[in-house]
Amino acid sequence: MITLYTWTTPNGRKPAIMLEELGVPYQVRAVNIGKDEQFAPSFLAIAPNNKIPAIVDEDAEGGPLPIFESGAILTYLAEKHGRFLAPSGRARYKALEWLHWQIGGLGPMLGQLGFFGVRSKDKSPLAIDRFVEESDRLLTVMDKQLASSTYLAGDDYTIADIACYPWTIAATITLKDVLAESLATKPSVHRWLQTVGERPAVKRGMTIPKL
Amino acid sequence: MITLYTWTTPNGRKPAIMLEELGVPYQVRAVNIGKDEQFAPSFLAIAPNNKIPAIVDEDAEGGPLPIFESGAILTYLAEKHGRFLAPSGRARYKALEWLHWQIGGLGPMLGQLGFFGVRSKDKSPLAIDRFVEESDRLLTVMDKQLASSTYLAGDDYTIADIACYPWTIAATITLKDVLAESLATKPSVHRWLQTVGERPAVKRGMTIPKL
Repeated sequence: MITLYTWTTPNGRKPAIMLEELGVPYQVRAVNIGKDEQFAPSFLAIAPNNKIPAIVDEDAEGGPLPIFESGAILTYLAEKHGRFLAPSGRARYKALEWLHWQIGGLGPMLGQLGFFGVRSKDKSPLAIDRFVEESDRLLTVMDKQLASSTYLAGDDYTIADIACYPWTIAATITLKDVLAESLATKPSVHRWLQTVGERPAVKRGMTIPKL
Repeated sequence: MITLYTWTTPNGRKPAIMLEELGVPYQVRAVNIGKDEQFAPSFLAIAPNNKIPAIVDEDAEGGPLPIFESGAILTYLAEKHGRFLAPSGRARYKALEWLHWQIGGLGPMLGQLGFFGVRSKDKSPLAIDRFVEESDRLLTVMDKQLASSTYLAGDDYTIADIACYPWTIAATITLKDVLAESLATKPSVHRWLQTVGERPAVKRGMTIPKL
């Protein structure tokens, strides 16, 4: 059994989608970041970076195995179950490229745009301009990639798509005003969002945690 | 032979250190980002995200294999040569946790602090405060981790250390004014910087590309 510590954020949805795709048993522990529950000592013992998501694989060899960082969790689950990430060869590294691209680029930049462009009461035009521009650059790169392949890493749906979907769909909702111009010119991103979003496991994962 | 496309930045130094640690033959192609060389079509064919570093493994099975994203490059080289990342088990995922922590956290946040706190002529106190605070939070997490283990993922030097070193040493130099207070209270980070920085391969990697 996997225990998933998560909340209703893009990063929190990634392992939920992955667990739904794998169809393996798991239990959810909601960590309410609005109430600072990510700073509870019991959670910090699992996730020293005080961020959701984290998992504990209760049945791991040698005893319960905690893992934090969504990219590490997706890689762990993919390698444990042999799905959504090729075990070797070119396809493996294409998926890891786009996984890392999400972890280091799309996620942090859309996240900062959410803060400066939407959530912060104080406004910094310098910061808003910077993160709108960088988000548009990243979505343009993504659109170009998806113009020539069904999924981010090629013909196969991988953990790269699972990582990118919750952030990209969130951009079309919570960031739709600040990114309106950018989103209007990304047809391949929208095609991919529809393809991925129609997967039953993705639909279910996007409702986790149920509050 | 590996061809390394890189520049004198923290992300650019990661694969240089890794290749020096592995002691495998490689050639360097300097991509001058001050002259926008990362937008050259020949580079975009390798790195569609227009960022260094990237590599091409000229001898890969099936023909030259390009890889972009520093985290994917480090993982590829570690798996190809069976070094600095355990092939399975707990140690593997501890290293991947801290690798992803650098890719998604330490790197982007120190990078934004470099822009808002140092490089930008216009100043946004809102943005500077945010990225000083987040950088300090990350360095505090790192210091706590390194207080109880020699390296980030435990007793062994891994790609997580290789990923974190160039960013952390850069913070002590280019960000030393904005992070003075934070850096003064991170003894374990400084101990680790010294340990890692004394490795001959790290010293050599930090001089790549030679201009």
